[in-house]
Amino acid sequence: MSKSVVILLSGGLDSTTLLHHLRRLSPGLVLHALTMHYGQKHARETVCAAWQAAAAQVRAHHLVDLACLGQITAHGSTLTGRRPVPAMSEIREDQLDQPPTYVPNRNLVFLSLAAAYAEAHGIDEVFYAAQQQDFYGYWDCTKAFQEKLNSLLGLNRRAPVTVRAPFADLDKAAVLKIGVAAEVDYAHTWTCYRGGELACGVCPACVERLAAFQRVGLPDPLAYE
Amino acid sequence: MSKSVVILLSGGLDSTTLLHHLRRLSPGLVLHALTMHYGQKHARETVCAAWQAAAAQVRAHHLVDLACLGQITAHGSTLTGRRPVPAMSEIREDQLDQPPTYVPNRNLVFLSLAAAYAEAHGIDEVFYAAQQQDFYGYWDCTKAFQEKLNSLLGLNRRAPVTVRAPFADLDKAAVLKIGVAAEVDYAHTWTCYRGGELACGVCPACVERLAAFQRVGLPDPLAYE
Repeated sequence: MSKSVVILLSGGLDSTTLLHHLRRLSPGLVLHALTMHYGQKHARETVCAAWQAAAAQVRAHHLVDLACLGQITAHGSTLTGRRPVPAMSEIREDQLDQPPTYVPNRNLVFLSLAAAYAEAHGIDEVFYAAQQQDFYGYWDCTKAFQEKLNSLLGLNRRAPVTVRAPFADLDKAAVLKIGVAAEVDYAHTWTCYRGGELACGVCPACVERLAAFQRVGLPDPLAYE
Repeated sequence: MSKSVVILLSGGLDSTTLLHHLRRLSPGLVLHALTMHYGQKHARETVCAAWQAAAAQVRAHHLVDLACLGQITAHGSTLTGRRPVPAMSEIREDQLDQPPTYVPNRNLVFLSLAAAYAEAHGIDEVFYAAQQQDFYGYWDCTKAFQEKLNSLLGLNRRAPVTVRAPFADLDKAAVLKIGVAAEVDYAHTWTCYRGGELACGVCPACVERLAAFQRVGLPDPLAYE
């Protein structure tokens, strides 16, 4: 029987790269992709996720309605709340470990649901595309986070699920290089935090993405405002 | 400023007892109650949760639409799937640590969302009513689970949330005694796993509840089939 894994696929640069990287490493791998819709300001990412899931020939792609996370955290985040997403230049240095775009506990909520899905389907690995971010220090993208979560999930002796973050030591440019090798079509990814027709180019996510393309020496195929 | 806490309130015996126990210990405590609707076979519990939340004068009671957990785990649980809930007498001894009514990873999903809510609202404690179950050994009700989860959440240095399970060392009869002291009205709680008009009296949850009332020497105010 072929090995099956679950992958958290947002439709952004990192998770799309991970998806195609896994497919490239292991053509027979059975992939179950979960995309969380949690009340972001737009659905652009989820459309890209569906496109990429099809391109990577996943066995199943589930769009998970997690609007409740947006409702629960609207108070604390510009990604799910009413306040506008700031430009990178508006973020103070002392906010970098937890900028206004941080969604409280998002990764643990996503990974808990992914582990529930994995356990219910007899799958023992969940992949997510945490990477060593260039500008931020999100606590829930660290190796310590991954290790402690795996220690917790290991208590489930009947069905221990292991979370894997193979990009945890890489920065975004290194991730992008892997994606270029895997022939990822980045025109079908979405990174911008704002909800415009074109990517804004100034929000923290756009700035980080553009810097990665620049460092790798490639043009970003997305159109920017 | 009064202390605020989040409590997971299902509307069952344990969490209802915890709610009123906290209220009794600390009349000024600001309580935020979260009730998860995750695709259970009935909404009886959530109606009871709303009644109890009002009785305990919580500041906010949120019914969280977590139907996605039911969809994700329908494959693996009789609580959220199509297979019927078994009677206690049908559960084999080797299933006791993870009976067919177990919902994969449910507690971690609930607690992750509760921690997200807490963090977004500047609250640093989440209470849940895990207790030392009489018949089962759910991995996600243990003290080890609680400790490892707190170690994980502690990585969030800006807003570490602590999960508290004050009933973790108690069995259901001991919890019931605490509730009796707190004058809980157990007529407005719901425990049965099945979706009938009356509680069935034979599913694992009913059997456990009835045994607790019997050991405490009180009649259960609920009507049974």
